[in-house]
Amino acid sequence: MTGEPVLDRSVRIEQDAVLILDRRDFPHRQEWVTARSAAEVAEAIRAMVTQSSGPAYAASAALIITARQVASKPPETARTTLIEAGALLTAARPTNNAVRDTVEAVLAALPQEADTARIVAAAEDAANAQAEAYRARSRALAEHAVALLPDGSRLLTHCWMDTYLIELVRAAERAGKQYTYVATETRPYLQGARLTAHTLAEMGQEVTLITDGMVAAVLSPQSTLGRIDAVVTAADRVSMDGHVFNKVGTLGAAVAARAFGVPYYALVQAPDDQAPTAADVVVEERDGDEVLHTLTERTASPLVTRGHYPAFDVTPPEFTTLIVTDRGAFEPASVARYHEGGAA
Amino acid sequence: MTGEPVLDRSVRIEQDAVLILDRRDFPHRQEWVTARSAAEVAEAIRAMVTQSSGPAYAASAALIITARQVASKPPETARTTLIEAGALLTAARPTNNAVRDTVEAVLAALPQEADTARIVAAAEDAANAQAEAYRARSRALAEHAVALLPDGSRLLTHCWMDTYLIELVRAAERAGKQYTYVATETRPYLQGARLTAHTLAEMGQEVTLITDGMVAAVLSPQSTLGRIDAVVTAADRVSMDGHVFNKVGTLGAAVAARAFGVPYYALVQAPDDQAPTAADVVVEERDGDEVLHTLTERTASPLVTRGHYPAFDVTPPEFTTLIVTDRGAFEPASVARYHEGGAA
Repeated sequence: MTGEPVLDRSVRIEQDAVLILDRRDFPHRQEWVTARSAAEVAEAIRAMVTQSSGPAYAASAALIITARQVASKPPETARTTLIEAGALLTAARPTNNAVRDTVEAVLAALPQEADTARIVAAAEDAANAQAEAYRARSRALAEHAVALLPDGSRLLTHCWMDTYLIELVRAAERAGKQYTYVATETRPYLQGARLTAHTLAEMGQEVTLITDGMVAAVLSPQSTLGRIDAVVTAADRVSMDGHVFNKVGTLGAAVAARAFGVPYYALVQAPDDQAPTAADVVVEERDGDEVLHTLTERTASPLVTRGHYPAFDVTPPEFTTLIVTDRGAFEPASVARYHEGGAA
Repeated sequence: MTGEPVLDRSVRIEQDAVLILDRRDFPHRQEWVTARSAAEVAEAIRAMVTQSSGPAYAASAALIITARQVASKPPETARTTLIEAGALLTAARPTNNAVRDTVEAVLAALPQEADTARIVAAAEDAANAQAEAYRARSRALAEHAVALLPDGSRLLTHCWMDTYLIELVRAAERAGKQYTYVATETRPYLQGARLTAHTLAEMGQEVTLITDGMVAAVLSPQSTLGRIDAVVTAADRVSMDGHVFNKVGTLGAAVAARAFGVPYYALVQAPDDQAPTAADVVVEERDGDEVLHTLTERTASPLVTRGHYPAFDVTPPEFTTLIVTDRGAFEPASVARYHEGGAA
């Protein structure tokens, strides 16, 4: 029986505020950031208070408190305020499309020609439904992933898959399978060393931490760690032509996996039908200063002034074995078939 | 005109002691470790007070103070003590062969049937000559590397090439060429962020720091940093069948470089004729606890107990474009021709 990980519920809604567990220094400190508006939630997302699955939950929560805040306003003001809140949330970070999808679904659920009470109720209901759907779809893709991964597999993962990872562990347990994990530490923010490794340990899973530079060595036949059976990561976005956008470092893992005959599975609820090609996705560049620091401490030489921090990289289809969605696994080249409703 | 980098002279000999600049926290602190015997020098090497080219210089220095310490002993005691000192130094770390080569050369220079004064003088002379030869051969390989690298090249380097890097910058300047550098930070010890980036900045070179996980992204066509013209690293050892042993992370860089059509040049004074194949080289495993820490601070979750730290990885010949030695550049498959005296 696995334990309940803290990060499974890292966004909370109070009457007029969203509490977001600050992942920038979790688990070394466990502090919650209070956001009292959609703008403050958007700022928390931009500032990396939460990431991975977190922004989708935070966006739902932001729309819920926004709806409550406009309960005494005229209907058109309520609607406009929700639309503006959605725009702020969607604009917080450009690469992952889960916030955009949440916002679009909630706004699409707002009734036309309705009074404010109905608008508020519809927004709250739709936002809650989106958060629940996010969990359900993560559960579904995790079950498809577990079907691909034999009992006893040793999995190498990069960065922090969040709900996908938690549901992967739970789905394996339901299927009577046990995996062991190798986690990259994932500089500069060390999400792997802090969030992934911590959560896997909380859930009673065996996890070994490596630095980001060790991925190829661990995948190679010379590794002393034993055979890695699969590389498994989330995808922040998958374009319809099968390119995987995920935390920088994923590409290197995928390239090494292919070179050494290890399958690479990218997990995403669905490819983005608003991104026909890789060129339609914006790869976020973050402040290069982060590379010069580790958990706020300056670790690079004081003489160094330039850091480079592309937050994501792009894995072309030829380096990904399968893209595992909530409708099953697809070869990258045919992932667009997801939206035809068919499985692989 | 480039500046003189501090790390170019990081081993000093006093009458009865070796002073070794402590690279474990350079440049954040500049402290010298005092070693008063070959055993203490070996321990400093093992503990990573110095690495890369450092142990070769430290071994020469250790043999010099050992020779001085036996100046009043009988000849056979002097000889035996030097042999034992050499064994301690060679055993400190297993992968790089420069210390072993230094020790073998010094011991081979000891005169037979001689009095202690001649043994001591021969040891001192040979040890000094070895250190000077190390610099001269590094200068030679750097000149061969510069011949391969056009003016204006952007080079990606991993870990800390030490004398090879310093001589590369100097050789480029002599040739009227200017390079720019991208340095990986090289976890867990951050040699790239501290030693490489610092030294390049001291020498007036433009250097951009990236995390180890960004190598493939930066080499890929999608990189926003601009085209990388070559990956250039040192090699701690090259076996006669063309396998490159170097700081873990080198393999991933080489594999990504090949995938994206970027040449990878491995710099080493010579392949090791005592290692016919890759199987003849021991890859050092260091304490996995290092992965859980950054510069002595615990950075991983406190729940995580397992880290894995293979200090080196093995790049097979197909991923290396050229091995650049002090006798010129060789294709990996024909690097054994080095010992036939011929260049590529």
